[in-house]
Amino acid sequence: MLPGIGVFGTGNVVKVIVPFLREKGFKVEAIWGRTLNAVEEVAKELEIPFHTNKIDDVLLRKDVDLIFIICSPNLHAQIAVKALGIGKHVLCDKPAGLCQGEALKMVRASQYYPSLISIINHSLRFLPAFGQMRRAIVDGYLGQEGEITVCDVRVQMGSLLHDAYDWLCDDTMGGGVLTLVGSHVIDLVSHLTSQRAVRVHGVIRTFTKTTDYVNGIRHISSPDFCAFQMEMSGGALVTATLNNHLPASFSQEVLICGQAGHLMVRGGDLYGRKSGSTKEDVIYLDVEDLQRGGAINSTAANAIPRPYMKGLFKMIGALREAFLPVEDKRGWVKEPVALAATFEDGLYVQAVIDALKKSNANREWVKVNVITEEPDPDPLLSAAVRRSTISM
Amino acid sequence: MLPGIGVFGTGNVVKVIVPFLREKGFKVEAIWGRTLNAVEEVAKELEIPFHTNKIDDVLLRKDVDLIFIICSPNLHAQIAVKALGIGKHVLCDKPAGLCQGEALKMVRASQYYPSLISIINHSLRFLPAFGQMRRAIVDGYLGQEGEITVCDVRVQMGSLLHDAYDWLCDDTMGGGVLTLVGSHVIDLVSHLTSQRAVRVHGVIRTFTKTTDYVNGIRHISSPDFCAFQMEMSGGALVTATLNNHLPASFSQEVLICGQAGHLMVRGGDLYGRKSGSTKEDVIYLDVEDLQRGGAINSTAANAIPRPYMKGLFKMIGALREAFLPVEDKRGWVKEPVALAATFEDGLYVQAVIDALKKSNANREWVKVNVITEEPDPDPLLSAAVRRSTISM
Repeated sequence: MLPGIGVFGTGNVVKVIVPFLREKGFKVEAIWGRTLNAVEEVAKELEIPFHTNKIDDVLLRKDVDLIFIICSPNLHAQIAVKALGIGKHVLCDKPAGLCQGEALKMVRASQYYPSLISIINHSLRFLPAFGQMRRAIVDGYLGQEGEITVCDVRVQMGSLLHDAYDWLCDDTMGGGVLTLVGSHVIDLVSHLTSQRAVRVHGVIRTFTKTTDYVNGIRHISSPDFCAFQMEMSGGALVTATLNNHLPASFSQEVLICGQAGHLMVRGGDLYGRKSGSTKEDVIYLDVEDLQRGGAINSTAANAIPRPYMKGLFKMIGALREAFLPVEDKRGWVKEPVALAATFEDGLYVQAVIDALKKSNANREWVKVNVITEEPDPDPLLSAAVRRSTISM
Repeated sequence: MLPGIGVFGTGNVVKVIVPFLREKGFKVEAIWGRTLNAVEEVAKELEIPFHTNKIDDVLLRKDVDLIFIICSPNLHAQIAVKALGIGKHVLCDKPAGLCQGEALKMVRASQYYPSLISIINHSLRFLPAFGQMRRAIVDGYLGQEGEITVCDVRVQMGSLLHDAYDWLCDDTMGGGVLTLVGSHVIDLVSHLTSQRAVRVHGVIRTFTKTTDYVNGIRHISSPDFCAFQMEMSGGALVTATLNNHLPASFSQEVLICGQAGHLMVRGGDLYGRKSGSTKEDVIYLDVEDLQRGGAINSTAANAIPRPYMKGLFKMIGALREAFLPVEDKRGWVKEPVALAATFEDGLYVQAVIDALKKSNANREWVKVNVITEEPDPDPLLSAAVRRSTISM
């Protein structure tokens, strides 16, 4: 039987996901929002039977077995760790948390409850074009493995901000193009190339500090532009340009070059060209209609770019499969979501984001360091304790 | 009367330019090549009456008044300085030279003979789409001046190498994507934004070190990939990705964003969008046919990408106008080529290239330093001399 779902968050994405979850047969039992006013409105609009502004009131419900965390990143770790601790499956929006320390707590929780499903919403992995791209790379379209030379990613889109001040304006709460789009790019290219970032360099900027809606004493600290380079473990070089200065448009191109050819995903379509070939191969064209069944409110559908939404829908489809086999006593298997980003992947992405922020601050290349122990909250105190222990 | 032309170089570009020069009414009197064999062949094919492998034999000819330097960059400065010194006009291919020292010598020569025309072949300035883009920026399409936020340039193309080992394979002779394409990009964005690079960061790579034609004891040292960022004097941030790993194709996109809108040149066409507008403006479509008059050999036309060739043709048209006004006693005026890149511009571009190379070598941001004095060839010796002078 499909698990009952508890949703954390009241953003536009929620308005897209809830109808789609129902279409797939899931029951959405409860929703949490930061304020009662906001969550009441969304619960009414989406006809969700229970709403609250208390986290535990959703987590402890008996009819909720799967948690969708789609709120501001500063709450991700807290909710995810608690949910796993009381035996609930978790799908957590990207990025994993605000820093590696938070992401590591999530990893620990997922390792402690290995039978529970715990995945990060890096939905592009599920977009068919990228599935095909990965298969082509594994099959040697670009040459032998390790022969990948350059990955170039470009995302051009409008502002990520809403018409009011909220966490999206705030760098310290996880807003901005690096955490919200860059995290996807880091996960995607690492997944596609089977290589991990070793050393990175980034330029992160906030050009638009005020808008018609955010001005006066408040200003925007979340970045609206980011360009970064990553040296990968297998020798590939990744360059990415993420730009929020093209209002009302969205274009995303992912190019991967190897000695034997190149592959390019534009939007949801995959093109390729083998070296020496006189023409471009059209490997996959995305003609499937997202709006089938009419379940998706078209204005809400504009909330997230098409490739991300489509990947998310495919991922929810995989999640459904994970819960369908009835012969399994536990009621679920993990295989259908094996493709999904794990909390470990989330920790790695967070490590790269931390390195990019440090690179930007210090204008230097920074080695990616995935932590395995929680950072010491007060290194000076600890050192003093060590000294006093030694002197005793 | 139009001046007689002496051409330096025997590459494919020469085979495109010479017929076009004739179509415009110029007489090509002499050609120089590195080897007699090579130059003899090209002279015969292009029906140029005089050929030689001695530089002076072209420069000293009485029927030659305008020099086209389209050979390897290591010879640019030497030929340009000599030509100006004996009163000949010079069009010199980019980059100005191999280093700032060479470019500075060219600047000095052009300053010493200010009435002579001395321009660098940064032909994209003459491409109509970029002329329109510059006008739109000046007219405030992107907002007030200084409100430019991001310029993003992407050039994707095939290999720059020929089917044999030559200077294009050699970094120290000026080969590679940074000097040959990057120099254009640096000049173009500086020209379009009326800002200059202050601080730069670059990643320069040679992924393809051998080919079917270059292997064994020889290998390729010229870069085939380059990604760089430039902080501009007016606050704009430039990002550029130049990629030689897409065989048999060419795509070039120049995006400039401001607070009030953005402008994008794709190929030879200009698009724009004002903030708040619901649709993209098609500002300029390049429908003019390059092949008019049949003057251009189509295989040769593949030698340089269309926007560069078209810009070059427009520049030659301007050069023609410069020599047309008969009422001027000297026989030429500089106004029609006022748009062209000067040798000073060439020095600036060279300073940026030098800074990018240093940035790549040291993995750091580097301040752009345009030299005004020739670098000391032996700083240790000079210091010793100064010390001995002081002690005397």
